[in-house]
Amino acid sequence: MADIPTLRKLTTLMRYHILAATTKAGSGHPTSSLSGVELVTALMFARGRSGAPFFRFRLKEPSFPNNDRLIFSKGHASPLFYAAWAAAGGLDWKDMLTYRKFDSPLEGHPTRRFPYTEAATGSLGQGLSIGVGMAMNGKYLDTLPYRTFVLLGDSEMAEGSQWEAIQLAAHYELHNLVGILDVNRLGQRGETMYGHDIGAYAERVESFGWQVAMVEDGQDIEEVIDIYEKILAISDRPLMIVARTRKGAGVSAVEDKDGWHGKPLPQDGFEKAVQEMGGEPEPFTLELAEPEDVPLPERKRTQPQPFSYSQGEKVATRQAYGNALKRLGPALPDIVALDAEVSNSTKAEAMKESAPERFFEMYIAEQNMVGTALGMFLRGRTVCVSSFAAFLERACDQIRMARYSDATMLIAGSHAGVSIGEDGPSQMGLEDIAFFRTIVDSAVLYPADAVAAERLVEAALEHEGISYLRTTRAKTPVIYANDEPFPLGGSKVLRRSAADEATIVAAGITLHEALAAADALAERGVPVRVVDLYSVKPVDADTLLAAARETGRIITVEDHAPAGGIGEAVMSAIAADPCPVHVLAVDKKPRSGTPAELLAFEGIDKDAIVEHVLRVVG
Amino acid sequence: MADIPTLRKLTTLMRYHILAATTKAGSGHPTSSLSGVELVTALMFARGRSGAPFFRFRLKEPSFPNNDRLIFSKGHASPLFYAAWAAAGGLDWKDMLTYRKFDSPLEGHPTRRFPYTEAATGSLGQGLSIGVGMAMNGKYLDTLPYRTFVLLGDSEMAEGSQWEAIQLAAHYELHNLVGILDVNRLGQRGETMYGHDIGAYAERVESFGWQVAMVEDGQDIEEVIDIYEKILAISDRPLMIVARTRKGAGVSAVEDKDGWHGKPLPQDGFEKAVQEMGGEPEPFTLELAEPEDVPLPERKRTQPQPFSYSQGEKVATRQAYGNALKRLGPALPDIVALDAEVSNSTKAEAMKESAPERFFEMYIAEQNMVGTALGMFLRGRTVCVSSFAAFLERACDQIRMARYSDATMLIAGSHAGVSIGEDGPSQMGLEDIAFFRTIVDSAVLYPADAVAAERLVEAALEHEGISYLRTTRAKTPVIYANDEPFPLGGSKVLRRSAADEATIVAAGITLHEALAAADALAERGVPVRVVDLYSVKPVDADTLLAAARETGRIITVEDHAPAGGIGEAVMSAIAADPCPVHVLAVDKKPRSGTPAELLAFEGIDKDAIVEHVLRVVG
Repeated sequence: MADIPTLRKLTTLMRYHILAATTKAGSGHPTSSLSGVELVTALMFARGRSGAPFFRFRLKEPSFPNNDRLIFSKGHASPLFYAAWAAAGGLDWKDMLTYRKFDSPLEGHPTRRFPYTEAATGSLGQGLSIGVGMAMNGKYLDTLPYRTFVLLGDSEMAEGSQWEAIQLAAHYELHNLVGILDVNRLGQRGETMYGHDIGAYAERVESFGWQVAMVEDGQDIEEVIDIYEKILAISDRPLMIVARTRKGAGVSAVEDKDGWHGKPLPQDGFEKAVQEMGGEPEPFTLELAEPEDVPLPERKRTQPQPFSYSQGEKVATRQAYGNALKRLGPALPDIVALDAEVSNSTKAEAMKESAPERFFEMYIAEQNMVGTALGMFLRGRTVCVSSFAAFLERACDQIRMARYSDATMLIAGSHAGVSIGEDGPSQMGLEDIAFFRTIVDSAVLYPADAVAAERLVEAALEHEGISYLRTTRAKTPVIYANDEPFPLGGSKVLRRSAADEATIVAAGITLHEALAAADALAERGVPVRVVDLYSVKPVDADTLLAAARETGRIITVEDHAPAGGIGEAVMSAIAADPCPVHVLAVDKKPRSGTPAELLAFEGIDKDAIVEHVLRVVG
Repeated sequence: MADIPTLRKLTTLMRYHILAATTKAGSGHPTSSLSGVELVTALMFARGRSGAPFFRFRLKEPSFPNNDRLIFSKGHASPLFYAAWAAAGGLDWKDMLTYRKFDSPLEGHPTRRFPYTEAATGSLGQGLSIGVGMAMNGKYLDTLPYRTFVLLGDSEMAEGSQWEAIQLAAHYELHNLVGILDVNRLGQRGETMYGHDIGAYAERVESFGWQVAMVEDGQDIEEVIDIYEKILAISDRPLMIVARTRKGAGVSAVEDKDGWHGKPLPQDGFEKAVQEMGGEPEPFTLELAEPEDVPLPERKRTQPQPFSYSQGEKVATRQAYGNALKRLGPALPDIVALDAEVSNSTKAEAMKESAPERFFEMYIAEQNMVGTALGMFLRGRTVCVSSFAAFLERACDQIRMARYSDATMLIAGSHAGVSIGEDGPSQMGLEDIAFFRTIVDSAVLYPADAVAAERLVEAALEHEGISYLRTTRAKTPVIYANDEPFPLGGSKVLRRSAADEATIVAAGITLHEALAAADALAERGVPVRVVDLYSVKPVDADTLLAAARETGRIITVEDHAPAGGIGEAVMSAIAADPCPVHVLAVDKKPRSGTPAELLAFEGIDKDAIVEHVLRVVG
């Protein structure tokens, strides 16, 4: 293992490439990278006095389950990240110059296109939650001895999500999670709230139950190594190293100076900096320590039990979500369920009956829940996350970012729409379909009965991407046979005749209103088609185009805002060959009341549908 | 002022009505209300030994600027909230029985339909941020001596937004902000992380720089009064009272028992509870203490300075947002700007040049920023909030909730779309139009040049509701004259002929691509119409319907996901009389690269538009 002079040479080599890459790219964050050089070098390449390495990683096998994990929560320090992996031999030094180019995997902020990126970062305050997920997997699921390290910036400690992660890590006693906080004093536009007061961070983190150690001079690699050795010996709680560093360290023109965030050195500044470091350093690499080879627990999937509902039986789709978890839990040993303190409402609690060791209470902290789920997914788990649809909106940024880590994840939002009734608007998810439809490769699924809900959980687990399952609070009658298939991208035509004068497209709670309306209309001699659009995305364009062609008009009905919802999904599906579409949706500010009053108030109940169809049919 | 026996009688009276209202409604959260009865009673109706009241409020004038403010962050304790205001005479006791009825202002969670609701709550972890905004207004803007009290639940302390608010309150030394934490041990589905360990909360909050006092028995009104008196004497920092209480206190069948969250007593349980309290108590009210009458600072709006751009000059719309703030700041003395540590990117920093005392740095904590802005709005300020479009997605839940407090708010999201280039997907807002379009009464504005941006800021400030201004990182040429009007709901037809074979609808960065494409198409003998859809919501349906009718096909181009964006806004506008619509949008996972490479990669640049138009024109 490298001695101190060699490590010092490496820090100079890394600094050189951080500067060269960003000056060449003409953008990027060299100063934010320079402050952390010693922290990362010491972690990856030094050993303590005992000779034990701090970080173990099999370079040729980035997915090796026993590898330690290193997440750059301060993703803008990507030049440091890439330089560290170049130092380890995972990347040619010369490829550093492809930084931020279209065809290079070295993106402005790390993404999974670079093989050593554990998780895409760059939206601040997310890395620690992902680390929580990886550490929970190590401790509770894979039961492997790897450690998860997270490099944190001081500015991002202002994000509440950090404190969600900190409290959860302490609650689950994640002895295998290590935060390294690079306190370089300066944020994007000036000083942070606490400047160089590392004690302020230490005190706060400690009050949440972490073991904390402070590094007075984070540019002193010997001090850093000493502190690492001391704190990493502690193994009964999460650890945080709080290091006072200097932004731009090693380049006198910018070191500890405001006004240099996210700015590369100009060419002449770069040349001066190289002079200052004694010319262009010789490239070399150092070996990473090999991890242990502890075998993974064996996991064999078996055939899930079938389910059995009776047609006409009243079951809430949220209950069916819980039933599906309970049923699939024993059969799929890689499945994990997380819930944000509402599992008796989302019904995720049912999983506790069949696989309690794979249900994790995440308390009312939705951002951290999604980050944790991502961390678990990235360590091989099949993750199911739930809360009220409305409260999942806390985690939109985390959900957006999860997809950039190529996440597959089932997210179940219960209590969607005004049909929840008396609890009022604060509890009504009315924006969720629109949001989830925007995510690349997402599926947006909205079952109208228990059979559809169970089948869509199964389908979602097979879908590569984020799947959103929208469930309903109220009990609704089972309308499908137990063997009815529900492929993603499909739909069900539930009423149809050659004489249909219009098509009603609905899903979830409004499908039942639509069926009742169709029956009432049929009695009045107005036959209409009814489509159950259980897969809002991907959408069944063929069926909708046929309906447009054959019935000439479509009425959509949804317990959701008009924007980005079922109505617009239908319009998009038939955009090349459209017919008139009439959208019945929630466009008045809702309030408390009975479900029936609210569906009527918003004009999305049976009577409103009948009235609207009669008006447009003329 | 009331003596202790009278206050005790009042707590019994409030308990009776909490139970009666929820049993009658058949839903609601009586047990979460019962734990806080003494905390609220002592606050509103008791005095300290010195005779000074804790809470001052002019009942007949809820909007009186000198009133103390009481926010129920634990909004599900609405029965307690309404009972407290009934006790003050703000509501007839008998009207408690209208709780959760459609026509009653007593909603399941408080909304502004009830005149004493300071802010709508019910999505947890938001009240303290709103309190921060009210307290900042009191300290820095209105400079009035009122205090802001926030009743907090223990479960909601898991939300990161709480810690964002706690750190900001300490940073701004909000001596006029008081949290009252009702530690009743039990969350929705079981015990909280810390149970009855009030020291755990106290230590954490204290570590952030607050003064904290603990109440050992929050059902002991004399202890509560003593602690209030002691801590409220401290006036140099924010204060937190951490009280150990018992969920369901006063009803032996449910007191401190799990399984009773969000459940009313059944009729027989109610009757037993009434027996236990010695029968139905006699109704009475107590008077609130009168606040001081400190005059508000005088604020006179003056005519803003005009602006002056030259056509062809290159100015980023984000810069124009900053310019508008700088220009409007001195003229509109009620305007306030908040930014989440990126004001040199959003350009909100420009406001500091003309009105530095009304610019507030909110650090990287977007949830708290929006909550704080709401608090300031509710105290009369005109609020402008900014961050990257992508990072505003941290605050979707707060934005959604803000509208239920009838908020008017300008939210500016910069760095929208893939056109930001090298920084990569983590920094690209691609979901923002869809989200903001879902909000009731929102405006979604997307200027293509500096003139439009300046005018749309002015228009947004006049719009009742949430206005979202989407700005672009890159400099774009000024295309409009300085006196061009930009009303909400309008659009600009920039290319038009009688022979137009298609209409291109674009906004923001893609408008410039659309104009270049139209000119290239014109040269090839294919005249097309071009519409600048700067007002995505409300949308100019007339112009779009005319374009559909006259040109027969529409091509939309947007630097946003296809779902819920400009394409679907256009489809919705012409849904009753549609033509084929072709959507060019960001539907591939983006990456780092130059803006031009990324616009080409996603098929939303000039060449892609030309190619697409030629294909559909045939």
